[in-house]
Amino acid sequence: MIEYRNLRVALLGAGNVGAEVASLLIAHRDELAERIGAGLELVGIAVRDVDAPRTTELPRELFTTDAESLILGSDIVIELMGGLEPAREYILQALNSGADVITGNKALLATHGPELFEAAEQVGAQLYYEAAVAGAIPIIRPLHDSLAGDQVRRILGIVNGTTNFILDRMHTTGVTLEEALATATELGFAEADPTADVDGFDAAQKAAILASLAFHTVVPLESVHREGITGISLGQVQAATRAGYVIKLLAICERLVDAEGTDGVSARVYPALVPEDHPLAAVHGAKNAVFIEADAAGDVMFYGAGAGGRETASAVLGDLVSAARRHVIGGPGIAESRHANLPVLPMSSITTRYQITLAVVDQPGVLAEIANLFRDHGVSVETLVQSVASDTEHPDPTATLVIGTHEASESSLAATVTALAATSVVESVVSVLRVEGL
Amino acid sequence: MIEYRNLRVALLGAGNVGAEVASLLIAHRDELAERIGAGLELVGIAVRDVDAPRTTELPRELFTTDAESLILGSDIVIELMGGLEPAREYILQALNSGADVITGNKALLATHGPELFEAAEQVGAQLYYEAAVAGAIPIIRPLHDSLAGDQVRRILGIVNGTTNFILDRMHTTGVTLEEALATATELGFAEADPTADVDGFDAAQKAAILASLAFHTVVPLESVHREGITGISLGQVQAATRAGYVIKLLAICERLVDAEGTDGVSARVYPALVPEDHPLAAVHGAKNAVFIEADAAGDVMFYGAGAGGRETASAVLGDLVSAARRHVIGGPGIAESRHANLPVLPMSSITTRYQITLAVVDQPGVLAEIANLFRDHGVSVETLVQSVASDTEHPDPTATLVIGTHEASESSLAATVTALAATSVVESVVSVLRVEGL
Repeated sequence: MIEYRNLRVALLGAGNVGAEVASLLIAHRDELAERIGAGLELVGIAVRDVDAPRTTELPRELFTTDAESLILGSDIVIELMGGLEPAREYILQALNSGADVITGNKALLATHGPELFEAAEQVGAQLYYEAAVAGAIPIIRPLHDSLAGDQVRRILGIVNGTTNFILDRMHTTGVTLEEALATATELGFAEADPTADVDGFDAAQKAAILASLAFHTVVPLESVHREGITGISLGQVQAATRAGYVIKLLAICERLVDAEGTDGVSARVYPALVPEDHPLAAVHGAKNAVFIEADAAGDVMFYGAGAGGRETASAVLGDLVSAARRHVIGGPGIAESRHANLPVLPMSSITTRYQITLAVVDQPGVLAEIANLFRDHGVSVETLVQSVASDTEHPDPTATLVIGTHEASESSLAATVTALAATSVVESVVSVLRVEGL
Repeated sequence: MIEYRNLRVALLGAGNVGAEVASLLIAHRDELAERIGAGLELVGIAVRDVDAPRTTELPRELFTTDAESLILGSDIVIELMGGLEPAREYILQALNSGADVITGNKALLATHGPELFEAAEQVGAQLYYEAAVAGAIPIIRPLHDSLAGDQVRRILGIVNGTTNFILDRMHTTGVTLEEALATATELGFAEADPTADVDGFDAAQKAAILASLAFHTVVPLESVHREGITGISLGQVQAATRAGYVIKLLAICERLVDAEGTDGVSARVYPALVPEDHPLAAVHGAKNAVFIEADAAGDVMFYGAGAGGRETASAVLGDLVSAARRHVIGGPGIAESRHANLPVLPMSSITTRYQITLAVVDQPGVLAEIANLFRDHGVSVETLVQSVASDTEHPDPTATLVIGTHEASESSLAATVTALAATSVVESVVSVLRVEGL
């Protein structure tokens, strides 16, 4: 048995992921030491209550409430406590003491990322965060290293397992959003308060992190346009299926040039229609996937579990091995390059395609009136499907129009929809969804 | 404009990938310098014939036939000439001179990998090879770094675009293998001599590389069991579709314990039945994908272009940025850890499932005889579908039996098939395929 020198590892938080990290660290101690060339000694786990019940059996003497002493005596600090404070403060303490930090805290990174990365750079410490986006899926490192010589054009990410589970279930079993959410809660895929997931807050945090990394630019969370899935009806899901699409909540990060010629980036989250033969359409259940379009590499996709204590712990351990190898040999970590600092463009400057479903009066001249309205707004219609309702109780005959547009600016499209809603021949705008992945 | 110090980069070979690497290096010079913190100066391109026609316009003064002088004056050497010699010799020269080396040469790595990695380790240089497996898809780095704290159990890879194109086309358009191959050749997806692809040699090289990396073990190319796709008939493809499978040529790397309790690894390549709802089944055309099953991370998949000059050049540039960052800051590269050195187990020690199609005499007692034969060999039958042939020209009635087995040892299964072929009630063994991905 070779004797290795030990690196001192502190763990902050013993929740789902933290407890798994601790038990994997203990179980694979020897194998990890061989891979790293140094031992990893888990010196303590900072928690609020030493005696709280845990999901995993861990030696009681590891637990402490004194996070600060633990941090100051460690080479590597793993922050898995979540929340903004005191996580932010602890991470700054760790970095300032020269320790490398590993975190899975997406809310913190999306909110205070620039401050944390700057602190790391100041002292030459490293901040790793593979676990913050898409759980077990290696995505931060491929973006940072593997695609480092390429130009990322666009990222389409299914980065929230709860909403993917709900939408997938609506598609595959024909239940309503409320029913699918109830099942998700029952199976543990949704939290008691599902707001962060279904309203897209979680996905928006991940979009901010991915866009910052992919485009070497600070993308503040507030600049991420966000729409959740609560407005998605079973009718929309069924209509999408008939038209050859699936509805997915996408985190979209895009490099684009706006109408004024400004080269910038856009980060946004909304439910969108994805063609059924797109690789993202085959991402079922609570799985995540990140689809990247790069200049030279073309399309690449990363797929796997987006959450789960054990799965996310794998990402933390990958970071831990990298951090430890760096301690042994020295060298670059995953520090951010934000040199590009492109402007973050507002939602109005992106171009996209819409699929608009209208209930219209079924009388001569309606189609011409609607076609004129699209033309007047500079939006080109690609497909138009009309079906007359079989609803005989209505005094006037009503038809349903499903209109697919060519790519147009978001502002033209929004203005078109507003004008459609105000037209007398349109009884109601039933659904407006963007189409992505074409 | 910041002035950076320059790193001297030598390129060996100006084929498809090499020419793209050179032109991307020149086109993105400034952006790469910002990302790295040092400039990359392409000091020369070693070729056999300076005046040979190239696919890409490159400055003529870069070309040289003097590879050795070029190598000795460089910080980083990119080997994209292919073949075993003189590529091996040049790489050893480069490493011994202290230069880092980037290669996309899978044949060389699968054959002389241990020698090259040892040479790199001796002098503290690094050998990068993301481009050697699955083209543009980041797979080497995720295996080496992101999953470094996890235990890989199994890898199922679609790592050869030509054969995936052929099999996919047989599935989607109902053509024969010969016709699909002709189309692949026409479209440039197959080479004039397609042997390396269709007989599985290319996939076997990649299996050796992936297994070595995933299991920290030397897996010699000769130990990779290899079957190509030339035996796959349209009838097998159609039968697979009816049974809910697609046929894919898989490179399989597996950690397993054999019947004697030996913990070892297996690397093998063969066409297999994959359930149609498995993520690998949705990998169409010439695309590649690598599906990894890990202890903690669960299932992750990496998908993208497996070949193509520009796409593969992206992987080379990713390695180049990593190598250059290491020169600037120092630190660990992608050097191999082979500490585990597990035994490589022969094909007979793996367990798998078979789907066996038999033409049998349609008379009483046949099913019982066949069922007894499976039982006598310790193989458990999971599904059995019988259909009577409508072929009225045969004097004796013939039936087709499709038998799906439970998991059993490869040796039991092989013995079962041999015994079936020798039984008088079996007219012929129509098809034997392994089932993977369950």
